Amino acid sequence: MILLTRKADFSAAHFYWNPAWSEEENVRVFGKCANRQGHGHNYTLEVTVAGEIDGVSGFVVDLKLLKEILEREVVSVYDHRHLNYEVPEFAEASGAVPTTENIAVAIWRRLEGKIPGARLHRVRVYEMPDLFADFYGEGA
Amino acid sequence: MILLTRKADFSAAHFYWNPAWSEEENVRVFGKCANRQGHGHNYTLEVTVAGEIDGVSGFVVDLKLLKEILEREVVSVYDHRHLNYEVPEFAEASGAVPTTENIAVAIWRRLEGKIPGARLHRVRVYEMPDLFADFYGEGA
Amino acid sequence: MILLTRKADFSAAHFYWNPAWSEEENVRVFGKCANRQGHGHNYTLEVTVAGEIDGVSGFVVDLKLLKEILEREVVSVYDHRHLNYEVPEFAEASGAVPTTENIAVAIWRRLEGKIPGARLHRVRVYEMPDLFADFYGEGA
Amino acid sequence: MILLTRKADFSAAHFYWNPAWSEEENVRVFGKCANRQGHGHNYTLEVTVAGEIDGVSGFVVDLKLLKEILEREVVSVYDHRHLNYEVPEFAEASGAVPTTENIAVAIWRRLEGKIPGARLHRVRVYEMPDLFADFYGEGA
Amino acid sequence: MILLTRKADFSAAHFYWNPAWSEEENVRVFGKCANRQGHGHNYTLEVTVAGEIDGVSGFVVDLKLLKEILEREVVSVYDHRHLNYEVPEFAEASGAVPTTENIAVAIWRRLEGKIPGARLHRVRVYEMPDLFADFYGEGA
Amino acid sequence: MILLTRKADFSAAHFYWNPAWSEEENVRVFGKCANRQGHGHNYTLEVTVAGEIDGVSGFVVDLKLLKEILEREVVSVYDHRHLNYEVPEFAEASGAVPTTENIAVAIWRRLEGKIPGARLHRVRVYEMPDLFADFYGEGA
Repeated sequence: MILLTRKADFSAAHFYWNPAWSEEENVRVFGKCANRQGHGHNYTLEVTVAGEIDGVSGFVVDLKLLKEILEREVVSVYDHRHLNYEVPEFAEASGAVPTTENIAVAIWRRLEGKIPGARLHRVRVYEMPDLFADFYGEGA
Repeated sequence: MILLTRKADFSAAHFYWNPAWSEEENVRVFGKCANRQGHGHNYTLEVTVAGEIDGVSGFVVDLKLLKEILEREVVSVYDHRHLNYEVPEFAEASGAVPTTENIAVAIWRRLEGKIPGARLHRVRVYEMPDLFADFYGEGA
Repeated sequence: MILLTRKADFSAAHFYWNPAWSEEENVRVFGKCANRQGHGHNYTLEVTVAGEIDGVSGFVVDLKLLKEILEREVVSVYDHRHLNYEVPEFAEASGAVPTTENIAVAIWRRLEGKIPGARLHRVRVYEMPDLFADFYGEGA
Repeated sequence: MILLTRKADFSAAHFYWNPAWSEEENVRVFGKCANRQGHGHNYTLEVTVAGEIDGVSGFVVDLKLLKEILEREVVSVYDHRHLNYEVPEFAEASGAVPTTENIAVAIWRRLEGKIPGARLHRVRVYEMPDLFADFYGEGA
Repeated sequence: MILLTRKADFSAAHFYWNPAWSEEENVRVFGKCANRQGHGHNYTLEVTVAGEIDGVSGFVVDLKLLKEILEREVVSVYDHRHLNYEVPEFAEASGAVPTTENIAVAIWRRLEGKIPGARLHRVRVYEMPDLFADFYGEGA
Repeated sequence: MILLTRKADFSAAHFYWNPAWSEEENVRVFGKCANRQGHGHNYTLEVTVAGEIDGVSGFVVDLKLLKEILEREVVSVYDHRHLNYEVPEFAEASGAVPTTENIAVAIWRRLEGKIPGARLHRVRVYEMPDLFADFYGEGA
C-alpha cells in the first residue's frame, strides 16, 4: 500500500457565529472571527489517497483524474466564495460553523467514494500556514 | 545606507466591483473576483525602511517600535476585516477597488512619515504566494 | 475524531556535550555541535491535539486558549534562551543533551494534561527546515 | 519511541512511457509526461526513522551517519541523472515507470536495513511542492 | 508607478555542454551538469511589470490576460520539455547553454512587447530554491 | 547585465549588548535579545552578483567557485558559532552589536573583491523568515 497526496488551493471568506448565542458570547468564544462582515483566507487542501500501485502505469491513482475530481467536488464550490452564504454545508439553517475542523470534515464527505480505484485516507486543511486540521473519516 | 524589511500578516475579505459598470462588465473584467459576497486571502505585507545604521545600537530602526507601528497603522485596521465594507480607503463612496496594487498604495500612505529615524522605502503586498505588488512612493 | 495542529516558533541557543566524555569523543559524536560557546536555531514547534468537534462551536479545542497554553508552557520558557543554561530539563545536573529528539520529548511532558477537552496527540519539533523529530507520548 | 526525519534533495529528469502501449495510449494515460525527450524536477526526499533515544547521546540515530547513508544510497545515484536511462530500477528492461509512487518504493528498498540502530519508518518523495507519495514498507 | 509580479512554474530537463570543448573541459566547467542524459528542475518564473494603476479597475495590468500571456509565451513552450532538444533558443545550432542566466534572458525576449499597457520590468528565474537569476532588459 | 543570486545557511548564537549602557538600558532597547546567555537563529544569506553572461559558458559567475567562496569566507566562520565570542567583527573590543543590519555589512566586507569576474551587488541576511536586511555596499 502507498499513499499519494495532492494539494489544491482555494480563497474564501468566512466568519464564526452561533445564532443561538448573544453577541457577547460569540465574541467571547470566537474573538475577532465573530466579525459578521467576514474576513478570509488562502486555504490549502491536501488530499491523501491510499491504494496499491498499478504494475503497468505505476500509479496508485490517475493524477489528471484526481485533479479533476478535486476541482469539481471542492475547488469549484469553495473558491472565491463566502462560505457562510454560498456553500451549503455552512450556509443552510442547519449549517455548521466554518471552522478549519468542520471544513476538513465537509471536504471529506464531498470526496468520499468519488475517487475510482483508491481509498480516501486523509483530508488536511490549512487555514493559515500555522493552523491546520486533519480528518481520517467518520470511523477513525 | 541599509534596508531593513519586516513582514506582517493579515486575513481579510474583499471583492472587485465597479458600481459604474453593469454586472456583465464587472464579470468580464474581474472574473470570479466580482462575486459580491466576497472571498478572502491571507495577505503578507513586507515593509522596507532605509537609513543609516546607528553606531551604538546597530539598528537602522527600533525593531519593537517598527512592529508596533505596523500593528497600529495597518494590521489592527485590516486584519479580520472585509476591506470593501470596513476599511475607509476602499469602503467610502470614493473608495478604490481593493486590488493588490491599491492595497500597496493605501498601506504606503498609512505608514509614510510614521517611522522615526528611517525612510519608508518599499511596501510589498502578497495577495497569494504567486501574486504581489510593490510600491516605492508617489514620486517613484 | 479530528486532529488540530498549531505551530509556534522559538529562537534558542544550544550545544551538544556529554561531560562524561573527553573533548575528542564529544567532537567525534557531535561534530561542530560540540562547540561549547553554543550556536542556535529558529525552532518550529507543531502541536497536534485530537478530539471530537464540539457541535456548537465547531472547535475541537479553543484556539485562543491553545495559543495561550503554548505560549505559557513552552515559548516563554524556551524563546530567546540558551537551552543548556536556562531551561531546567537540559541545564540541570541530570539534564539531557538538547537534541531535537530530547526537545520534542521535553515539550510533550510540558504540555501533557494541560489542554482542556482534547488529548495531546503529537509534538513535532523542527531544528531546521530539513530536520525534525516527532513524539507521540511515552507509551507510543 | 521517537521518529526522526531528515530531508535531502535531488534533481533528475524522467518521462512516463509503457513500451507495451501505443503512443496514443501513452499520451492518454500519461499526458505531457509521455514526452520521451524527458522533463525534470527538483525532488525532495524525507526519510523518517524510528527508534529509542540513546540516553547518553540524546540521538535516535547518528545524524552525520544518516546524512552519509542518504548521500551514498540515494542522492549519489539519483541526483543530476535521467531516471529512465541511468537508474537501474527504472532503466532496465524490467524497470518500473518512474512515478512518484515507484520512486518512493525504490528509495525504501535502497535504504531498508542500511540504517544502524534504527528502523526505517517512512519514505516520502515530493515531485513538486503539491504532489508527494508516502511509503511505509512492503508489509504496511 | 507600481510593480506587479506574478509567478508561474514549469518543469523541464536540461544539461550544460559546449560542443567546442572536450568532454574533460565540459566536466571541469560544468561539473555534474555536463551529464548529457540530462537532469531536470521545477523552475519558478517571476515576471514583474511596471505601470500606472488604472483609476477605474485598480489594475496595472489585467491579471487574467497576464496569466494567459505567460502560459502562451513561456509555459506552453518550456513545461515538460527538454530544453536542449525542444526549445529553439537552446536547441538550435546557435543555441545558448540553458543556464539560469540564459533562461532569464530568453524569457525576457519572449515576453518583451507582449504585455499591453504595462512595461516589462524584470524576469526572475529560480532553478532551485537557492539559486536564481534576474534580468532587467538589454539596456539595463 | 544580469544578476545571479545564491543562498547559503548558517546557524549561530548571538545576543545584543552595549557595555557602555546599564542593564536597564540594554533591556529597554534590546528587549529579550539582551539576555547575555545568548539565543540563536538559522540565518539565511542571499548573495547577489552582477555581470555580463559569458557567451561560451552561459555563466555570469562560475557557480561551483561562488559556492566555495561563500563557504570559505562566510559559512566556515559563522556557522555553529557564537557571534559575540567567536566572530572577530562582533567579538573584539571594537566589535559591533550583531544585529541583522551589522551582519549584512560584515558579510559584504568579507566578500567584496573576492568574486572573480563579477561585481558584488547585494548581500541579504534573513535572521528569521519575517526579518531581513539588505546591503548594497558602502557608497550605495
